[in-house]
Amino acid sequence: MKKIKIIETAYRDAHQSLLATRMRTRDMLPIAEKMDNVGFFSLEAWGGATFDTCIRYLNEDPWERLIELKEAIKKTPIQMLLRGQNLVGYKHYPDDITRAFVEKSYENGVDVFRIFDALNDIRNMELSIKVAKEQGAYVQGTISYTVSPFHTLEKYVEFAKRLEELECDSITIKDMAGLISPQDTYELVKTLKEETDLMINLHCHCTSGMTPMSYYAACQAGVDLLDTAISPLSWGASQPPTESIVAALEGTPYDTGLDLKLLSQIKKYFEEIRQKYLGILDPIAERIDTDVLLYQIPGGMLSNLVSQLKQQNALDRYEEVLEEMPHVRKELGYPPLVTPTSQIVGIQAVTNVLSGERYKNVSKEVKEYIKGFYGKPPAPINPEIAKKIIGDEKPIDCRPADLLEPELEKFRKKGEEMGIIKKEEDVLTYALYPAVAPKFLRGEVEEEELKAPEKVSNSEYDVP
Amino acid sequence: MKKIKIIETAYRDAHQSLLATRMRTRDMLPIAEKMDNVGFFSLEAWGGATFDTCIRYLNEDPWERLIELKEAIKKTPIQMLLRGQNLVGYKHYPDDITRAFVEKSYENGVDVFRIFDALNDIRNMELSIKVAKEQGAYVQGTISYTVSPFHTLEKYVEFAKRLEELECDSITIKDMAGLISPQDTYELVKTLKEETDLMINLHCHCTSGMTPMSYYAACQAGVDLLDTAISPLSWGASQPPTESIVAALEGTPYDTGLDLKLLSQIKKYFEEIRQKYLGILDPIAERIDTDVLLYQIPGGMLSNLVSQLKQQNALDRYEEVLEEMPHVRKELGYPPLVTPTSQIVGIQAVTNVLSGERYKNVSKEVKEYIKGFYGKPPAPINPEIAKKIIGDEKPIDCRPADLLEPELEKFRKKGEEMGIIKKEEDVLTYALYPAVAPKFLRGEVEEEELKAPEKVSNSEYDVP
Ligand SMILES: [Co+2]
Ligand SMILES: [Co+2]
Repeated sequence: MKKIKIIETAYRDAHQSLLATRMRTRDMLPIAEKMDNVGFFSLEAWGGATFDTCIRYLNEDPWERLIELKEAIKKTPIQMLLRGQNLVGYKHYPDDITRAFVEKSYENGVDVFRIFDALNDIRNMELSIKVAKEQGAYVQGTISYTVSPFHTLEKYVEFAKRLEELECDSITIKDMAGLISPQDTYELVKTLKEETDLMINLHCHCTSGMTPMSYYAACQAGVDLLDTAISPLSWGASQPPTESIVAALEGTPYDTGLDLKLLSQIKKYFEEIRQKYLGILDPIAERIDTDVLLYQIPGGMLSNLVSQLKQQNALDRYEEVLEEMPHVRKELGYPPLVTPTSQIVGIQAVTNVLSGERYKNVSKEVKEYIKGFYGKPPAPINPEIAKKIIGDEKPIDCRPADLLEPELEKFRKKGEEMGIIKKEEDVLTYALYPAVAPKFLRGEVEEEELKAPEKVSNSEYDVP
Repeated sequence: MKKIKIIETAYRDAHQSLLATRMRTRDMLPIAEKMDNVGFFSLEAWGGATFDTCIRYLNEDPWERLIELKEAIKKTPIQMLLRGQNLVGYKHYPDDITRAFVEKSYENGVDVFRIFDALNDIRNMELSIKVAKEQGAYVQGTISYTVSPFHTLEKYVEFAKRLEELECDSITIKDMAGLISPQDTYELVKTLKEETDLMINLHCHCTSGMTPMSYYAACQAGVDLLDTAISPLSWGASQPPTESIVAALEGTPYDTGLDLKLLSQIKKYFEEIRQKYLGILDPIAERIDTDVLLYQIPGGMLSNLVSQLKQQNALDRYEEVLEEMPHVRKELGYPPLVTPTSQIVGIQAVTNVLSGERYKNVSKEVKEYIKGFYGKPPAPINPEIAKKIIGDEKPIDCRPADLLEPELEKFRKKGEEMGIIKKEEDVLTYALYPAVAPKFLRGEVEEEELKAPEKVSNSEYDVP
């Protein structure tokens, strides 16, 4: 009987989605042994925004977190999310840094690398996949899922085959915004199973509320791996609840074989953690919102949008901006909306509405995006818009990182001069976050205080 | 193409499950026109605990609520939940009151009657089904769903056939605790579709978190009607979110045909309502808890249990009581746990643990239950326990209401003497709630104040 395997996201995506990535290592360790005993396929516990948050707000060394988790979790592979050539940052890094980062991540305890690119541009993923495989790691090649006339089943299959050629061990369908319907899930999973020889993994956020149904449809289509979050950190902007998925599949051909009683103990622990962090839990992020389907933008963007418009005293333009968003996305060639493309599209939509003339003002990021510095967009960029923004300049044709000089030794030298390098990993921390890292490496970052839960005021729900 | 029809529960079950049934009529009416335009199969808006709450806490005449809703909702049938011979109360009423109540409910605007009995004892449902059918109403015969060795597919089918013989228009599977798994849903719905000629309706609470998957499985099995709640009042102890179900089924053979943009407007309205009632929204009720599956007791019972034990300074016995609960349920013949059997079993389990000897102390309700005054339990009661409690007394064999004398005229006379009868419906209000109604009918009930949202304290999560 085929068992579905479960990837638990409590240590990474779940708290990134609901608790602003603020969970401390000391809140992870006490439950690590129980987590290790469940029999998860892996524990996602590193990468994504955790690196940045550790050094910026928590005064934690992300490398030490990794080492401590690895010591505590003896049986279950530790998984990280890697943003392709963006690693755990927001821009392309040169190849020497990419290589060294992947090597050190593996060396310090990452067993499973989930590697994606916001534009599904395989050139931005090749090197990190190759280096991870060289180390002997398990690699999940990732499809950033979105919905557009250009994101056809055929395109996804073609992309998956290229990931297979790169010797990825499995394919992850990464549905950042919870856009994928049960029927589309069924078709995509079934086709990927037929057209590749890889294990297929589904990773969804519950933003639209359809996700549990899509997970069930995925099982029926033959999915191998599902991402879930222990229930106190589930639903809304996070993953479906682990216990519910386990319970729903029990006794079926998709049985996960995991023990609900053990999960219940882990759940009780995370109820306390949830309570501890309640002050930073966004009550909107916890809920679902099918408006993401109407405008095809992720839930996180909606709340960002509201606060952005508030700052500019323009909340009354909310609906206009919502309407503008899909137009900008289309004109920019339908990028999947995920860091950093979500920010690029969102800010441009606001600017277009507030400035009174579309693309009159354009950010540096949009210019670079159009010039190809983020990679190849899924669909052609509207030529008139491109012309208006970059004139007759020709976009680059090569892999963006090909234009980047090696930088590791430069950062090592500079870091050593500054006296902030105590171990090899510090060079990487510095190279990845040159603006933030020195303060952290000098020990001058103070751990952010945990806000107490606030009295909920009516104004918080003041969405127009 | 077969369309799934949706029953929206915002006006009844959703706020009963999350907001202690406290939604006011004046908070329902402003959105009634939009609700009416969606094209729901029906709007569940009356019955259950709403009647009691109206006269006890809200100083609202439930009959006037019904009339006002009926005036505002011109196209969509209004639905009520009727507890069989318990009507909208907690005990059996005599036949004359039952008949008059159903007649008046229909006359004042109820189009669809959903009729259930906690023990699935059809004798407790026959009269109300018959009278509702006589009026020309649409009647949903209801299966109270639970899990036990005695609740087999065959038994459910047999019960459904008896409901069909009574000329019910559809069968509702009422899964109070969210216990039904996707696979069991599929089998039950499919079998009921095969074995009866009726429309099949699934009504679940999301307590275990499996429900969206079960709804999807129900669609695949040919379900006709699904109960959902607009998203701000969904999930946890309530129904799955309306918009998510509609979105998930869009473009599939199960398409509901409902308009997501209109639902989004309704959702925005209920976000405000949710905010307004946030002070009485139990944060635990909103979340899911698969412990309901381990102990097979509904979520609401768990939080009741905690507060009961706290009152008796016995929170440290929580686990013991949890373990005791399924034993009591088994010994009492596996009643589905729903009002009033949930209270009966719950209190006895606590008493058994705290008194140090099982069934040493027994409530009046347990005695009456064993004597058959609630109807016939699904399975035989443990004979030793029965003997210990009622000795050699023989349980009744007849329909419980057969032992009740007509009472309507008695209440009319008494009510008129008291000067509290201004219209025919007042007699029923008085007869149903003789202890509470006089104060209400005299106009002496003050509307309960809406608590402001409280600061959430850590102690609220103090579940052992
Ligand atoms: Co994610
Ligand atoms: Co219900």
